[in-house]
Amino acid sequence: MVLVYKSDPARGAVWARRFAAEMAAIPFRSWPDTGPLEAVRFLAAWEPPADLAGYRNLEILFSLGAGIDQFDLAGLPGGLRIVRMIEPGLVGGMVEYTTLAVLALHRGLPAYLARQRAREWRADPAPLAASRRVGVMGAGVLGRAALDALAPFGFPRAAWTRTPRAIPGVSCFAGREGLRAFLAVSDILVCLLPLTGETRGILDAAAFAALPRGAGLVNAGRGGHLVEADLLGALDSGQVGAAVLDVTAAEPPPAEHPFWSHPLVWLTPHVASSTEAEGGADAVIGNLRRYLAGEALVGEIDRARQY
Amino acid sequence: MVLVYKSDPARGAVWARRFAAEMAAIPFRSWPDTGPLEAVRFLAAWEPPADLAGYRNLEILFSLGAGIDQFDLAGLPGGLRIVRMIEPGLVGGMVEYTTLAVLALHRGLPAYLARQRAREWRADPAPLAASRRVGVMGAGVLGRAALDALAPFGFPRAAWTRTPRAIPGVSCFAGREGLRAFLAVSDILVCLLPLTGETRGILDAAAFAALPRGAGLVNAGRGGHLVEADLLGALDSGQVGAAVLDVTAAEPPPAEHPFWSHPLVWLTPHVASSTEAEGGADAVIGNLRRYLAGEALVGEIDRARQY
Repeated sequence: MVLVYKSDPARGAVWARRFAAEMAAIPFRSWPDTGPLEAVRFLAAWEPPADLAGYRNLEILFSLGAGIDQFDLAGLPGGLRIVRMIEPGLVGGMVEYTTLAVLALHRGLPAYLARQRAREWRADPAPLAASRRVGVMGAGVLGRAALDALAPFGFPRAAWTRTPRAIPGVSCFAGREGLRAFLAVSDILVCLLPLTGETRGILDAAAFAALPRGAGLVNAGRGGHLVEADLLGALDSGQVGAAVLDVTAAEPPPAEHPFWSHPLVWLTPHVASSTEAEGGADAVIGNLRRYLAGEALVGEIDRARQY
Repeated sequence: MVLVYKSDPARGAVWARRFAAEMAAIPFRSWPDTGPLEAVRFLAAWEPPADLAGYRNLEILFSLGAGIDQFDLAGLPGGLRIVRMIEPGLVGGMVEYTTLAVLALHRGLPAYLARQRAREWRADPAPLAASRRVGVMGAGVLGRAALDALAPFGFPRAAWTRTPRAIPGVSCFAGREGLRAFLAVSDILVCLLPLTGETRGILDAAAFAALPRGAGLVNAGRGGHLVEADLLGALDSGQVGAAVLDVTAAEPPPAEHPFWSHPLVWLTPHVASSTEAEGGADAVIGNLRRYLAGEALVGEIDRARQY
């Protein structure tokens, strides 16, 4: 009953210490030092090894990231349970990034920094937070935390989810039928969705057209959510005022990609949030304890829904 | 018993409506339509008129900004009471700006945006907020609000003030004798001080040398707090990692000033926070009610201390 960890070895050393201290029942091994594959019941990885079929007794695949879209679900054994990562460092990082991005768009920082480089000192009117509506797509652990962090500033908040939710203080919209109404009240739109067949390309020209004119966009979901050519068109027309992007279709984008030099696009190299080694290990150890006790796992994926 | 308002006429129209509705006892006039100067008891202005000596019965000068450093205190009549502006819009704007600036420095945004323009996709390690110490200089209404807004992110917080204070959850330092110890625990330093003879030039080479190496700087106080050549030297040496500046010695800085093009300086045109028309009028009306009732005014200046 072995767990194999497959990722950065320095973080793996932290995991090995946590497992030695907290989960003696399950031997910890760092890939490629797996030992006999038939003994491996649990795998913690960003990407599974090429010889996954050889792990014949594998029961649970733990993703090391918040998403599981890097897995080819159709190619994984049908009975394999899949669990995404939920840990405090990942949540805290995303809260910081989304708050920073929303405040930057609210206060017009992309335009001010473009003016700085043009040696132009010119102030714009500064609407109050109470008149700047923020819409968050996705209201799982990350989306809820992002919404909570925005509350003290006084932004009116909305959320869009696949299935209906009720969140105190937040206007909630759900499903394809609620999307346009949600977008219409999103002066700043934040995408924190999981990437699935349903959400791929959701940030497209039709979505941008439904936003209030000059809206800001934050994509801290996945590059696949955004139709990049449509965003460039919306920026050109002024329909979208500025964008903060942590993810792109290709990472890094090719050298000739317009995002690199667009004055109203802020691009960061997929750093919004990352799994902290100790917190990640503890999250998996917590789930292994639940497994051993026959309890439900935290973050287990519904493979039909893809998240 | 007239109040004269001297500033932007559009905001003045908002003030006129508020006075008509809430303070019928005190006629409101918008400069230069002052009426007889001897009737003017109250003046609300960013800068007093050149013929201030003609306002012989003036009792109170209300600043339209958070500071009063724009006034030449020595040149004002000795008995004139001076009141600075404290209103929710001013506080909210500063909270947004300082939170944005601290998060941007914490997450290394200046460096990431410089890399974006160089078409470089490279992530840095992301320390947790719990290991990033933020020090705020000044703990009046603005400083306290800025400190409060940083709490949910988990930053260890310190404050430096002229006279000793106790703020729950914040390490407090005071006076010149406490300055070095305060700076030593400020990975990100935020200046929200009033500009006085004591604080002019406080952000100098000696202060930067006392910071942890690579510290970030936010100046949303006044340009006069910062010795700009010393900051450039500290950025060159790496002692200061990046700076977010809303104020400069000359505003705008001259065209040849290095801040315009420095990759690790973010410059905004004195927009961190501004007095909202309605909130500003209500703050002055509130103080006039206190005046009429013989009560203490909110935000009255101690002229010996200069704030």
